[in-house]
Amino acid sequence: MARVYNFAAGPAMLPLEVLEEAQKSLTDYNGTGMSVMEFTHRGKNYEFIHNECIALIRELMGVSDEYEVLLLQGGASMQFDAVPLNLLTTGKADYVVTGNFAQKAYKEAKKYGEINLAGSSEDKNFTYIPKCKFSDDADYVHITSNNTIFGLQWNEFPDTKAPLVCDMSSDIMSREIDVNKFGVIYAGAQKNLGPAGLTVVIVRKDLLGKHLPICPTMLRYDIHAKNNSLYNTPPTFAIYMTMLNLRYIKKQGGIKAIEQINREKANLLYDFIDNSDFYSNNVEKKNRSIMNIPFITPNPDLDAACVKGAEARGLVSLKGHRLVGGLRASIYNAMPIEGVKALVDYLKEFERENK
Amino acid sequence: MARVYNFAAGPAMLPLEVLEEAQKSLTDYNGTGMSVMEFTHRGKNYEFIHNECIALIRELMGVSDEYEVLLLQGGASMQFDAVPLNLLTTGKADYVVTGNFAQKAYKEAKKYGEINLAGSSEDKNFTYIPKCKFSDDADYVHITSNNTIFGLQWNEFPDTKAPLVCDMSSDIMSREIDVNKFGVIYAGAQKNLGPAGLTVVIVRKDLLGKHLPICPTMLRYDIHAKNNSLYNTPPTFAIYMTMLNLRYIKKQGGIKAIEQINREKANLLYDFIDNSDFYSNNVEKKNRSIMNIPFITPNPDLDAACVKGAEARGLVSLKGHRLVGGLRASIYNAMPIEGVKALVDYLKEFERENK
Repeated sequence: MARVYNFAAGPAMLPLEVLEEAQKSLTDYNGTGMSVMEFTHRGKNYEFIHNECIALIRELMGVSDEYEVLLLQGGASMQFDAVPLNLLTTGKADYVVTGNFAQKAYKEAKKYGEINLAGSSEDKNFTYIPKCKFSDDADYVHITSNNTIFGLQWNEFPDTKAPLVCDMSSDIMSREIDVNKFGVIYAGAQKNLGPAGLTVVIVRKDLLGKHLPICPTMLRYDIHAKNNSLYNTPPTFAIYMTMLNLRYIKKQGGIKAIEQINREKANLLYDFIDNSDFYSNNVEKKNRSIMNIPFITPNPDLDAACVKGAEARGLVSLKGHRLVGGLRASIYNAMPIEGVKALVDYLKEFERENK
Repeated sequence: MARVYNFAAGPAMLPLEVLEEAQKSLTDYNGTGMSVMEFTHRGKNYEFIHNECIALIRELMGVSDEYEVLLLQGGASMQFDAVPLNLLTTGKADYVVTGNFAQKAYKEAKKYGEINLAGSSEDKNFTYIPKCKFSDDADYVHITSNNTIFGLQWNEFPDTKAPLVCDMSSDIMSREIDVNKFGVIYAGAQKNLGPAGLTVVIVRKDLLGKHLPICPTMLRYDIHAKNNSLYNTPPTFAIYMTMLNLRYIKKQGGIKAIEQINREKANLLYDFIDNSDFYSNNVEKKNRSIMNIPFITPNPDLDAACVKGAEARGLVSLKGHRLVGGLRASIYNAMPIEGVKALVDYLKEFERENK
């Protein structure tokens, strides 16, 4: 079978070129006689990969010297604890709940202090970005830039007095952002950056060393910063794959170019859905996600048939999340525009046959 | 360059056959049109891999239904916190310190309760297994089965009233053990099981649900058990590689057969060292590690020259840990006996030339 267009919400597609590059050297990387997987993390061979990965994140996102870039494990879910354990110095923080993962982060933080719900769009099933009321004395404000399940995205970030902490797991490096607006950015790699198993944390240096006494050493940002993310064995192969993918993004013209294609892809699909009276998406237009596009057909049976028919055409993993139903097309960085065009062509045909 | 013999302490060698198997399908796994790295963790394609990995751990180690097998992230270092956060119900535990990582585990646990040092061999630089004095009321006893840095290994496990918790990062599946002796076994995968980025935890079911209120959800064993280690996105590719490697171990005849080869490898090198008056190892004989064999030449300059000469012959990563100096040969499951023979041949020659 040929390569398919994979619309999974993550882990997700990777560029074929990146996979082929990894494949070539899987038993012998650059004449070392070893796979990258076999490199000790304390040697030069690995060190180059590790440092290039960090340098590329800095370069592509325009991360200044005021920030540390950390390569960690555990996913965003582990950061739901790491954030309060590192930053909750006075015990107060604001959280904005715009989806399932934002809610998980909010609930988890409550373990450690007095957490203020600064805004929520739960009343309308997370289809809009709420107006927020931030506290005067919060240690930080936590938001989730893109909601993978409901397809909702902040198009402009709020101005906050307290450091803004953002879970960017599902849209990091998909569009240009100003890192200087944030105190902490964190993201699981498995959607836009690389394979599962790596978590990127970008933290402003003045926020280091404020952890609570009960913070596990492995969750302390200052420990990882001091050790260049080599305090213990890092997920070396996931870091290598991410590094290769970042090289690829750079070659495409960087995030500016990637954003343009991502917007083109999203517009193509949203325009088609909006012009159809068969498919629909009910997220507030100005905050629709350019990464995850959920939509429904007139009924659940047709939803299921539509997913199944797509699968047979090599358009896979289109089933919507169980909390929303319907279909969902996740069109991260690695999804080429041809994939979205093929999806639209198929949806047109499916509509014709089932209307 | 041909493949080398890699004596790194971890991440470490993997069998060529396993790497080649992964290489073949890196852009298209079994006709799915996707790499394993691209599989969503919520789909059938990945589920088979995940469940086969768990089933192989159960089968190879003889894990009974009284235990859960968890596939986690963060390495043993993350478990240094997870263990007390899950088990320290009355606030008391015993720790035996037989090396650097055992000491780290001991120090980390002190954050959460009253930790009794039940035994230590620090006085003689961790070259022997100490006599231990266990408490009557400990929630658990923590030991480290093999000391990667100093090359010290428990050959028999202590009988304890409290559940025995063991960090087996550097010797899991290298020898037959009776899992029923333990309350919890944990191990980073990157030495004997697979690549870095996966942590295996085997926990007795009656120990689940006893976590402290401050335990992060992501560190709760009961949460991961309830979700079959799919509470959040697992390190899918590291799990796949481990699964392939476990298949390979099974094909070799399982742990019984692997142990026999491992002992043969270790004996070969220890016998050579003991019969030489040029090289030496000062670990108490009955507790010498069959995984990590540190040794020295008559002086540090010769140590360095010996490492360098080995490198030129494709015998790599033999430099000793900075806490010990000298050389160290880590000869995990994937190191073939030919590698140890080649090392001994080289060491003989180096001795002849430098005596």
